[in-house]
Amino acid sequence: MSEVLLKGQKAKNASLSLVGVTTEEKNQALLKIADGLLMAKSVIIEENEKDLQAGRDRGLSESILDRIMLNEKRIEDMASAIQLLVELRDPIGDNLETIKKENGLHIKKNRVPIGVVGMIYEARPNVTVDAATLSLKTGNAVILRGSSSAYYSNKALVQTIHGALSETNLPVDSVQLIEDTSRETAKELFTLNDYLDVLIPRGGKNLIDTVVRESTVPVLETGAGNCHVFIDETAEYKMAERIVVNGKTQRPSVCNAIETVLIHEKWFHQYGIELLQVLNSRGVEIYGDELVVQVFREAKRATEEDWATEYLALKVSVRIVSDVQEAIKHINTYGTNHSEAIVTEKVENANLFMMKVDAAAVYHNASTRFTDGFEFGYGAEIGISTQKLHARGPMGLEALTSSKYFVYGKGQVRE
Amino acid sequence: MSEVLLKGQKAKNASLSLVGVTTEEKNQALLKIADGLLMAKSVIIEENEKDLQAGRDRGLSESILDRIMLNEKRIEDMASAIQLLVELRDPIGDNLETIKKENGLHIKKNRVPIGVVGMIYEARPNVTVDAATLSLKTGNAVILRGSSSAYYSNKALVQTIHGALSETNLPVDSVQLIEDTSRETAKELFTLNDYLDVLIPRGGKNLIDTVVRESTVPVLETGAGNCHVFIDETAEYKMAERIVVNGKTQRPSVCNAIETVLIHEKWFHQYGIELLQVLNSRGVEIYGDELVVQVFREAKRATEEDWATEYLALKVSVRIVSDVQEAIKHINTYGTNHSEAIVTEKVENANLFMMKVDAAAVYHNASTRFTDGFEFGYGAEIGISTQKLHARGPMGLEALTSSKYFVYGKGQVRE
Repeated sequence: MSEVLLKGQKAKNASLSLVGVTTEEKNQALLKIADGLLMAKSVIIEENEKDLQAGRDRGLSESILDRIMLNEKRIEDMASAIQLLVELRDPIGDNLETIKKENGLHIKKNRVPIGVVGMIYEARPNVTVDAATLSLKTGNAVILRGSSSAYYSNKALVQTIHGALSETNLPVDSVQLIEDTSRETAKELFTLNDYLDVLIPRGGKNLIDTVVRESTVPVLETGAGNCHVFIDETAEYKMAERIVVNGKTQRPSVCNAIETVLIHEKWFHQYGIELLQVLNSRGVEIYGDELVVQVFREAKRATEEDWATEYLALKVSVRIVSDVQEAIKHINTYGTNHSEAIVTEKVENANLFMMKVDAAAVYHNASTRFTDGFEFGYGAEIGISTQKLHARGPMGLEALTSSKYFVYGKGQVRE
Repeated sequence: MSEVLLKGQKAKNASLSLVGVTTEEKNQALLKIADGLLMAKSVIIEENEKDLQAGRDRGLSESILDRIMLNEKRIEDMASAIQLLVELRDPIGDNLETIKKENGLHIKKNRVPIGVVGMIYEARPNVTVDAATLSLKTGNAVILRGSSSAYYSNKALVQTIHGALSETNLPVDSVQLIEDTSRETAKELFTLNDYLDVLIPRGGKNLIDTVVRESTVPVLETGAGNCHVFIDETAEYKMAERIVVNGKTQRPSVCNAIETVLIHEKWFHQYGIELLQVLNSRGVEIYGDELVVQVFREAKRATEEDWATEYLALKVSVRIVSDVQEAIKHINTYGTNHSEAIVTEKVENANLFMMKVDAAAVYHNASTRFTDGFEFGYGAEIGISTQKLHARGPMGLEALTSSKYFVYGKGQVRE
């Protein structure tokens, strides 16, 4: 039997045992994991060093090596995040609906775990701990399929988690790592419908697209963010500048950073050069439409491809539009339904924009960088969903739950 | 451009126009459709007759012909169902969550339409009207891909709907029928991710499995129901008989009918023969395990395959188990996560069963036949979801909605 199939079966069994485990039991297990990570710090760092060495040998970029790297501080941060997770309210068991029928039937719709969560992700070993602990908090078993570039780190982390779980009532198989990181094991997970209830990809666009395309297991699509700010005719200059600079430069590599600025032509005539100069002075490369390159010589000409590109870098495309309708149309054509902002003093335009733009989160006079489970106050984040089913936008613990109808009768049958 | 691609684009545009349409506008359009159907009765029946004739020529079974058949009564029932739908509360715009941040950001999570719904279904032309009107009520555009066996009926129904919509503010393209019913158009819908937000298959297991396997568009899986009743040691005889007879014989062709009866060995020794005789006298063929065939000569021996079969007919498999644990294990092995019942006087056993059995709806002392959007009081039903994401169990209007975060600021940026 293949590793994936075997671990799938074990996960399914573990998930059935996890049903009915109490919040206290889950929290105690989480605290044991936090303690275990702190105690195993040096071993984890040693194993992580093997990944870093292998990465350097393969010539991985500094930014990817940084994503793989674990040090004392980062392991301590993992432990602290788990302690915060323990404090969060357990959504399992919540009553979502109660129906009393005339025939005496009593129906309760309650929140239950999803079952088995599959996680496919790239470099970052912190996702290993995140996914494992968020799944446990919600009573799910999890199968982790990390990247070869974090092989030793992931193994050390999961061994630590297993050590901790073995001292609790929770099955050790609740958390399992697929150690074979070949393409084949990913493919096997895509069609493991008998054992997996959901598959969550975390990583770049290629990974996500592949999972969406090839998986027959239901997918929670996260991530890709080609986000826009539209600066309307009446936007206050300083506010617009602040929101654009924040969206573009505060952390360009993340999905809620902005990639295109759409500017009302009248505003552009008055303030455009100033804004472009500010961006330029902060090291942002500008790809503009015809009007932009005419008036701002440092700008390069944007191609059709630029409008659809998530740069994830200090680059921005800029297009001049004649009104809010044109901005909405541009966003609904090129956007990825993530986070979209309008800066305007005209409330009607803000309302129209927010209603008509098709995105998980729409902003009036605020930075798109706020689309985040922690910023929204959920205390945890599985990812940011850009699909419309099950969960949309930042996903907290509830995104890892399902529901179940409990029907209580006295012998009722249907007429 | 292919029919599917063209209609996909039109649906997407229609869905953007549907955003912000008021409940009253939607309800008026629905009433126009109901009137239109009543007025077009004779045309629809004429067109339907063409399908019936073609079906008879192809040798379709009486039961399939009955599913295709439309008469005055059935068209009037469609119109009445639409009038009831108008009365239902519109969930669009509901506020699901309000978050006020210390920095003054004001976040609202509101219910919005999904966008474009794709429906792939078999024979029944009533699904055409159902899917169109439920989608409109929730502000969604819909693309309908029915079966060739209802080609003329579906076309007549959609023409009627178009006639009604043309007299309203709603775009006529909100409802579109794919007229080419070849396999290719279904395949095109499976990967129409740019224009479809969800695909809902309605029909037999083969159709559903194909859609789940081949679609890259998110799927709402409905339907397959291999449902069980477990009769525990302490079950009252009359109650158990009533629930089993109702589950098996009241309407054997539907997904919430039961397919297997699991019986506690002690109960079986006392009441088993009587129950089997009652079933037998009602024309139910019995496929039993070794013990059953030993004591009841009319029973045939069940094979491994029987436990996994959704008969959808007057057939039942019967297995004797030693306790509730064994019943739970059997159901979690062979069930399809639809509806599962226990008959028992022992509350602990009921609770254990309901907690551990993995199904959309679990019943204590009631018939599984109640798993139904109308029985649960939702007033509408898109289908019964057997998956765990987005919706589980009977799906009412809310299953056709998504959510969106509206964030209101005064220039806030992320630190």
